[in-house]
Amino acid sequence: MILGIDPGSRKTGFGLINQHGTRMEYVSSGVIRVHKEPTLADRLDLIYTSVSEIIEQFSPACMAIEQVFMGRGPDSALKLGQARGAAIIAGTQARIDVYEYAARKVKQSVAGNGNADKDQIGYMVKSILKLPGVPQEDAADALAIALCHAYNHTGLVNIAGATHSRRGRVL
Amino acid sequence: MILGIDPGSRKTGFGLINQHGTRMEYVSSGVIRVHKEPTLADRLDLIYTSVSEIIEQFSPACMAIEQVFMGRGPDSALKLGQARGAAIIAGTQARIDVYEYAARKVKQSVAGNGNADKDQIGYMVKSILKLPGVPQEDAADALAIALCHAYNHTGLVNIAGATHSRRGRVL
Repeated sequence: MILGIDPGSRKTGFGLINQHGTRMEYVSSGVIRVHKEPTLADRLDLIYTSVSEIIEQFSPACMAIEQVFMGRGPDSALKLGQARGAAIIAGTQARIDVYEYAARKVKQSVAGNGNADKDQIGYMVKSILKLPGVPQEDAADALAIALCHAYNHTGLVNIAGATHSRRGRVL
Repeated sequence: MILGIDPGSRKTGFGLINQHGTRMEYVSSGVIRVHKEPTLADRLDLIYTSVSEIIEQFSPACMAIEQVFMGRGPDSALKLGQARGAAIIAGTQARIDVYEYAARKVKQSVAGNGNADKDQIGYMVKSILKLPGVPQEDAADALAIALCHAYNHTGLVNIAGATHSRRGRVL
């Protein structure tokens, strides 16, 4: 099972899929909302705790997270970095491999177009996973990241440029 | 006991002090160096694990961390945010209060000048804590942050504008 994570300082999407050869099976997805927590420490703790609980409940073999290119200002980069750190550590502490994919790679893998927009990603996630509807945006992005990992990390064949490490692999 | 943390994507300083009324006692300090770890996941995990171990070993009552104003680009802000997230979660997971102080406040509190440079901070940390020499720069910054908390968070008298939360307090 693959856990995809789309981190954010207010909302962190997650999506779990199973891969059976070329067939992808939806397991679960959702959004961790932390904007009501009173302090930064509480928000980061809630992301860490929630991702840890998801890993404990579903026992995914690995985590895939979107690589970030910052078009925004340093202040939002700092906030996103903190949220991203919280999610990554939940993976490393649970001793699962952590992989990182560029946004363009995720879009290319799922929609066949590195510049696909949110609607196209949502539609493709719905179609590939045979869902009754398009998931919430952050959950759809997380599922897309998980699908990207499934397509690109086929173990024996292709490791998609991933670098190895003791506990995790980050592209 | 107060744990001061100066987070960074390559080096994270830490410093522990005891406060006896107005007298400050040095306990320990050092630097967590993560630049040799092969992946981002490993680096963040090492920061988290090291800060967790320091908290377990010394049982500080709280953690103080420098508030960051980003003069640098979004890429370094993202990296710093990830490291900062790792350190803060080590605090929240150990259930100690986490406080944040602006760099200017730290300098003002320790050197009497909000624009004090690194050398002045190092000298004042050495002098206040009666150390035989000036600590390594990141360790000195972490000790300065701990001292800032000791001076400004005198419990009954003055909470220095800190906001409260369930688990932590972040300015």
